[in-house]
Amino acid sequence: MITIRTIEEMQKRMIEYRQNGKTIGFVPTMGYLHEGHVALLQEARKANDIVVLSIFVNPLQFGPNEDFDRYPRDFARDEKIAKEAGVDVLFYPDVKEMYPHEPSVIVTVKERVDVLCGKSRPGHFDGVATVVTKLFNIVMPHRAYFGMKDAQQVAVIDGLIRDFHFPIELIAVPTVREADGLAKSSRNVYLSEQERKEAPVLYASLQKAKALIEKGERNVETIRQAIITEISTKTSGTIDYVDIYSYPDLKPLDKLAGNIIIAIAVRFTNARLIDNIVMNVK
Amino acid sequence: MITIRTIEEMQKRMIEYRQNGKTIGFVPTMGYLHEGHVALLQEARKANDIVVLSIFVNPLQFGPNEDFDRYPRDFARDEKIAKEAGVDVLFYPDVKEMYPHEPSVIVTVKERVDVLCGKSRPGHFDGVATVVTKLFNIVMPHRAYFGMKDAQQVAVIDGLIRDFHFPIELIAVPTVREADGLAKSSRNVYLSEQERKEAPVLYASLQKAKALIEKGERNVETIRQAIITEISTKTSGTIDYVDIYSYPDLKPLDKLAGNIIIAIAVRFTNARLIDNIVMNVK
Repeated sequence: MITIRTIEEMQKRMIEYRQNGKTIGFVPTMGYLHEGHVALLQEARKANDIVVLSIFVNPLQFGPNEDFDRYPRDFARDEKIAKEAGVDVLFYPDVKEMYPHEPSVIVTVKERVDVLCGKSRPGHFDGVATVVTKLFNIVMPHRAYFGMKDAQQVAVIDGLIRDFHFPIELIAVPTVREADGLAKSSRNVYLSEQERKEAPVLYASLQKAKALIEKGERNVETIRQAIITEISTKTSGTIDYVDIYSYPDLKPLDKLAGNIIIAIAVRFTNARLIDNIVMNVK
Repeated sequence: MITIRTIEEMQKRMIEYRQNGKTIGFVPTMGYLHEGHVALLQEARKANDIVVLSIFVNPLQFGPNEDFDRYPRDFARDEKIAKEAGVDVLFYPDVKEMYPHEPSVIVTVKERVDVLCGKSRPGHFDGVATVVTKLFNIVMPHRAYFGMKDAQQVAVIDGLIRDFHFPIELIAVPTVREADGLAKSSRNVYLSEQERKEAPVLYASLQKAKALIEKGERNVETIRQAIITEISTKTSGTIDYVDIYSYPDLKPLDKLAGNIIIAIAVRFTNARLIDNIVMNVK
């Protein structure tokens, strides 16, 4: 594994790989890697000659009152995990390399952002789409891997790739879960012992909703309320949202049909957890 | 020359060219080709294995009260000119191909747009930067050619390529002029006979300003007023702006020094003409 810190060296090397007919799989991250990231790297390893991991905590996607400075970082540990996961190139630029001056252009996301997490984080997905656009042009991958835990991010990147015609295949990788169903997340460590015991209810409530739909329920509000009841009676968390939309368009639904997402966000004392399932409704 | 109308076929072919080690030069236009475009094509022809011309009147860069519908179009003539200029691939998509639905992402230009034409055309350069981003990903050129007549556009594209790290070399080609100095433009056909006679005053006034600077004048306002006097006394046009900025940053100047642009826009009855000169001031 080689670590590269400049854009110029990355592009030079990536162009060489392409000229030699190598396929490139790309996993963009903000570091502090966990099993969810490793699952992305394993998928990339299976399908590409070269696996590129980027680690960059992107200031542009943090709001003024968000935790850019406190965001967890541990490069030595990440480097070890990357090596073990078979990464070929680790791109690890600093902020000055990625943003040497105020950006003269940014990507503005117009669709799929006024719902779910986008509603409470204005500008967040503009920052994500901008840095991903930059990274796509730096890494020039054939395939890019994103985790379905951040389903709205996957929807935004899907729109970005399609509307800007990046010649890149988006691979959405299923959420990695603990044995009890809790979605893996760096933030799980911030749960108290009691909250950690309650947290699997989030995924269980989604499974319950899925079962209702499979039994024939098609009323959006009935399904929402079933989830809300489950979470509010069985956990101490505060519900941020429980929503059902079409996927990946993230449009409201009158009636359940087609590809849908059921997405939830719940605040615990020191952690806000999100989870979702995407399913096809006949 | 082959004409391609779909994005999918373009990308397939462009990837093939690249895999075969061909260099690609790209000239994006809105069609109704004139000698200015031909100069871009000639430059592209000199330096690349494959020359790609795109013709697409981009609705996204026209304001609601601008001339999208009556923008001149003549594909048969364009095709002939393209062939004669040695174009290999003519990309000619329709609006539905480029914008099958409301764009979910656009490029927002943050710098270099609050002056000159950007000031009176809000959103214009967002539309330009968005379609150029799309076209860059469709054509995947090594070099892209833009005319210096639209100097602000060149500055914006320079920022786009640099900040989004497109692996593309920007080639700015000098403005092509009629024998009497008038900058070639598709919109010149909208001038009345009398206006056409007056129009060379625009370039003449820029030359006069240049001469003043070469003689030692360094006061921005003095130079502006010399141009304004020239145009307002010798034409029936209405001055939209006469401005002097640093180039390509387009920042106001206290004192003339370094790379500068002198840019003008003048409204005639049915056409708004622009012109500029870029020069280095010691």
